Amino acid sequence: MLFFQNDYSEGAHPQVLRALADTNALSLPGYGTDEYCERAAKKLRAFCGDAEADVSFVSGGTQANLLVLSALLRRYEAVLCAGTGHINTHEAGAVEFTGHKVIPLPGREGKLPPEVLEAYLERFYADETHSHMPFPGMVYLSHPTELGTLYTKAELSALAALCRRYDLRLYIDGARLGYGLASPASDLGIGDIAACCDAFSVGGTKVGALFGEALVFPRHGMPPHFDTMTKQQGAMLAKGRLLGVQFDALFTDGLYLQIGRQAVELALELKAAALKAGLELFIDSPTNQQFFVLDNGRIAALRKEAAFNLWEPVDERRSAIRLVTGWATRREDVEALADLLRGK
Amino acid sequence: MLFFQNDYSEGAHPQVLRALADTNALSLPGYGTDEYCERAAKKLRAFCGDAEADVSFVSGGTQANLLVLSALLRRYEAVLCAGTGHINTHEAGAVEFTGHKVIPLPGREGKLPPEVLEAYLERFYADETHSHMPFPGMVYLSHPTELGTLYTKAELSALAALCRRYDLRLYIDGARLGYGLASPASDLGIGDIAACCDAFSVGGTKVGALFGEALVFPRHGMPPHFDTMTKQQGAMLAKGRLLGVQFDALFTDGLYLQIGRQAVELALELKAAALKAGLELFIDSPTNQQFFVLDNGRIAALRKEAAFNLWEPVDERRSAIRLVTGWATRREDVEALADLLRGK
Amino acid sequence: MLFFQNDYSEGAHPQVLRALADTNALSLPGYGTDEYCERAAKKLRAFCGDAEADVSFVSGGTQANLLVLSALLRRYEAVLCAGTGHINTHEAGAVEFTGHKVIPLPGREGKLPPEVLEAYLERFYADETHSHMPFPGMVYLSHPTELGTLYTKAELSALAALCRRYDLRLYIDGARLGYGLASPASDLGIGDIAACCDAFSVGGTKVGALFGEALVFPRHGMPPHFDTMTKQQGAMLAKGRLLGVQFDALFTDGLYLQIGRQAVELALELKAAALKAGLELFIDSPTNQQFFVLDNGRIAALRKEAAFNLWEPVDERRSAIRLVTGWATRREDVEALADLLRGK
Amino acid sequence: MLFFQNDYSEGAHPQVLRALADTNALSLPGYGTDEYCERAAKKLRAFCGDAEADVSFVSGGTQANLLVLSALLRRYEAVLCAGTGHINTHEAGAVEFTGHKVIPLPGREGKLPPEVLEAYLERFYADETHSHMPFPGMVYLSHPTELGTLYTKAELSALAALCRRYDLRLYIDGARLGYGLASPASDLGIGDIAACCDAFSVGGTKVGALFGEALVFPRHGMPPHFDTMTKQQGAMLAKGRLLGVQFDALFTDGLYLQIGRQAVELALELKAAALKAGLELFIDSPTNQQFFVLDNGRIAALRKEAAFNLWEPVDERRSAIRLVTGWATRREDVEALADLLRGK
Repeated sequence: MLFFQNDYSEGAHPQVLRALADTNALSLPGYGTDEYCERAAKKLRAFCGDAEADVSFVSGGTQANLLVLSALLRRYEAVLCAGTGHINTHEAGAVEFTGHKVIPLPGREGKLPPEVLEAYLERFYADETHSHMPFPGMVYLSHPTELGTLYTKAELSALAALCRRYDLRLYIDGARLGYGLASPASDLGIGDIAACCDAFSVGGTKVGALFGEALVFPRHGMPPHFDTMTKQQGAMLAKGRLLGVQFDALFTDGLYLQIGRQAVELALELKAAALKAGLELFIDSPTNQQFFVLDNGRIAALRKEAAFNLWEPVDERRSAIRLVTGWATRREDVEALADLLRGK
Repeated sequence: MLFFQNDYSEGAHPQVLRALADTNALSLPGYGTDEYCERAAKKLRAFCGDAEADVSFVSGGTQANLLVLSALLRRYEAVLCAGTGHINTHEAGAVEFTGHKVIPLPGREGKLPPEVLEAYLERFYADETHSHMPFPGMVYLSHPTELGTLYTKAELSALAALCRRYDLRLYIDGARLGYGLASPASDLGIGDIAACCDAFSVGGTKVGALFGEALVFPRHGMPPHFDTMTKQQGAMLAKGRLLGVQFDALFTDGLYLQIGRQAVELALELKAAALKAGLELFIDSPTNQQFFVLDNGRIAALRKEAAFNLWEPVDERRSAIRLVTGWATRREDVEALADLLRGK
Repeated sequence: MLFFQNDYSEGAHPQVLRALADTNALSLPGYGTDEYCERAAKKLRAFCGDAEADVSFVSGGTQANLLVLSALLRRYEAVLCAGTGHINTHEAGAVEFTGHKVIPLPGREGKLPPEVLEAYLERFYADETHSHMPFPGMVYLSHPTELGTLYTKAELSALAALCRRYDLRLYIDGARLGYGLASPASDLGIGDIAACCDAFSVGGTKVGALFGEALVFPRHGMPPHFDTMTKQQGAMLAKGRLLGVQFDALFTDGLYLQIGRQAVELALELKAAALKAGLELFIDSPTNQQFFVLDNGRIAALRKEAAFNLWEPVDERRSAIRLVTGWATRREDVEALADLLRGK
Repeated sequence: MLFFQNDYSEGAHPQVLRALADTNALSLPGYGTDEYCERAAKKLRAFCGDAEADVSFVSGGTQANLLVLSALLRRYEAVLCAGTGHINTHEAGAVEFTGHKVIPLPGREGKLPPEVLEAYLERFYADETHSHMPFPGMVYLSHPTELGTLYTKAELSALAALCRRYDLRLYIDGARLGYGLASPASDLGIGDIAACCDAFSVGGTKVGALFGEALVFPRHGMPPHFDTMTKQQGAMLAKGRLLGVQFDALFTDGLYLQIGRQAVELALELKAAALKAGLELFIDSPTNQQFFVLDNGRIAALRKEAAFNLWEPVDERRSAIRLVTGWATRREDVEALADLLRGK
């Protein structure tokens, strides 16, 4: 069975696993107060080019999102996102469970267009009854998006300017950030993100870690008592060192971006092969998630040889599928899958 | 100044006020355990034609909605409604503040079409990842809707059948119920509503009461310890008798429907006059809220003589306005407004 | 049946009811934006001696408490109170339902002693693990307390000083404030309260209003968008004018304190008569709630002639009862009850 | 530096770490749907002697507690526990953040005495106003307790009988369960726990795992859609296999109890040595946490050579300290510490 189901189907990148094994016997203080967490934070600060960034670590992506959102939103505020945003679809209402409305706006290819945000905000404040509505308090973006697409520098700048103008915080869910930064199609660097955002996550789970996400708050932007809120949310790991050790490894010798580059390269090879084989793109993604439209019969046949996600129905007889590469994807598997797609 | 701003601009219908005055000196037990609450509940049971209906009372409409929704939803469930639903727009995120997602579906003239609901439910359960999404647990309808429109008996039956099939509860926000039941265009009786719904509110605030909404749970459907949840939500009135006395008065000698009929009659006269004067309908409402499209300049002029709501921009130079009648609207005011609309 | 069950067994003081009737037909804007609310706010500012106090109105006491607490607490903060505090006992977990812990401290006669608060705070900050605990963010006092007792000026000053030192907000639940201010035993004026507190309520429901509590935030201390939070909590009354009109009446010509004085006078007469009749005090209350210890058999007999609260068991054969006076209590009823207590 | 600070100062037991390494390259489905989770669940069912037990896994202890509590409590219910219970002290108000009150009852040596629980429940239901209070819905116990003590079989049976009588669920926080089951002083087996409880956790984080807790719901007692609630709480691990692999290893060849036995043995040796050296016990614990009373000066000196927790002040010049053993504690460290305590 070929495995293109997702980028978290295997354990950790061998270098990450080795770091965990090498530090296993050390007696260290708990809750992220150890030297490895501090070392990882330092490397992340350097990576982001912001010596004043505050850094924290949690176990998973939904946890990261709901923790940051509920920490940065005032109680009468809602978060805005593209309708396809992960917080609006696949987090089981986690943000609402902390008391905040998620307001989905019409997206384009998984992204929230600046003009859509602007229209919403203008209309909100023009409405005479807006004090009876939840106030827009934050914009949530995912980069890469749930559809593998990427914001451009111009788009992010425009969104950030709107956020500043209307007193919204800007948060980027970077669960797959490594694949975005490593895409040859991207003009957006980590420095741009750090400069524009109030907070963003640097995903580990899907980019080579056993588990874990780093939360970055540029310019000393971590809200006071964030550790207490982390505990309150059940998101504080007793052996916080596990997160420090892993991110320390991921940000040593460029491992994080190397994992990203390799997976994106294979994904783009897969896309090229699929297009050559006459497949139709569901969306044109420049990152490690690729989406194709296939006949339902063909999909059923393909599922016997490869594991992947059925994305959504396209019409009566066709559906979109998603194929994902990761640190563990091997070139021979991509070639084997390409053969299958070519009908060999 | 002519007042067509809303149906809660004045105090109570004189008969309601008199009942409050007449019972003012009585010493009665608190929290809705008095005889007037029981008497009002009895009359509401008769009105609904359900001798087993459970009845409770609260102060206001948002309170009624958030209390019922958060009492009937399981914690992993969301409520579905038309995008224009009051809980989705003008309740400041009250439902989300109790932990539940509101999922807006595309409505039609303020209503949730059964086929839209069915498509959503089919797609939800067909989605392989649906256990990571909030489960649809309830359908919220307003009747009349926020746009003054009314569900037909066939529509409500179809929605109720879907709710039964997919284990959803069905709730109707009847903040303006009296105007719906009294509309000559309605084929939906209170008995149909009681038969179809798991809960509904019978609005008093907008239909002649000083304040107050009755909550009806047909077929002994009130959830256990509903009084404790009412207290927990800050929605329990110490002098609960105030609600009992008012609803007792409203449901004596047909006052509730009489108020509804009179206001709808005036609203329809206003619509007829406006159409005659060449105004364009924003939506064709058969109840006490009427919506017209006017030039922005005309609106500004009209606002000097009449109080009403600016509803929403229609295009660059025109907007929709809302005109509302209620128990306190006088025929001469309708005529004066009609004159204004005719440009006299 | 003599009625000493509570101070909310009847409707409104006649002057309040008259004001509602007199303004009933006026067409006024909704949600507390009318002139009566503004007039009442102005009178309350004068009453408190703080021209910069922000004032808002809600329907009931639990609602007032949970709204202020959840608006003023940061999400990682808890509220401290005496174990007998209303929010800790009889609000069905309303504060916790908004996400905040209520930390009960050992009280004395219903009050939170400053030295108990200080010991808690010192110990909290000395604890090496305190970042894993909810932070103390507010002190909740009731004045009069649930046991009818009163804080002295010295006690309140000491508590306020601790709050300032440790960055806690100070809130007083004044559901029965009028009876405290009017007690001859009180050395604490409304000006002292306004000077010491970040917020307090001025109870109407139990002091002559049909319903309603005023919320006062001295020194422009109302948090931003408090109206939106009020709506979000289901605590905004559509016909907000009802609250404005009532408080306007209560604070015209000293009615509020006059109601308080009269009820306290009768309560103290009742206490004197009871002591004379050989009854034992459960607690020595200088306000409108009086507490006595009686044999259970005697209580059962008394309940046939008078309505009152069974407070709590004292030992195997005796219990405490509570007798409450209010605006509607008549001297002849007090005398009749005194006769009963004397065994006549 | 000798390390007796806690039982989560090191990584994983070597056998657990090896299992993670051995399975690292496998492509497995996410979210706990893999074969290792199923295998671990099967072993836990066998361990508990309940073939019908439902089993789930989460990352940490606070997460386990708040997830189970908020899944099993109805919204108007509170959880009861000894005042020293972890949920009442060191979880930053996590349970309250999900909307439920934690009601602390007076404990004895960290335990909740059955007679205390019974007295509370009797008084609650005897109180005429109890419908205005949060209903007792669950009892939370920790075993071993936060003070290292253990419930006896008789105590647990008595508590369970009360829970059945009053419709309360019974939950045991087993963060250190292995040390309780392995204590020679315990007469309580895992089968007794499974028979008595509605849910309990089997702690991995503190008993040899890298991280992770198993949640056991005997007799098919897992609430419907528990996976969705897990996701909603941010507690679902994408690579759920990590938890399955670890618990599979811990419950292979009796590793879990072997870790427990070894640590308890060393703890009891430490206690014996300390008593011999004349130290005073703060509490007499039969498990891996030991508590002694020392002069503050002595504590300060000791802290230079050993890491441990300052527990709480005992009087002006003495405090309690806590010494903890775990899978990584070596006999020579215990001996070295014993030497220090003897003043060598």
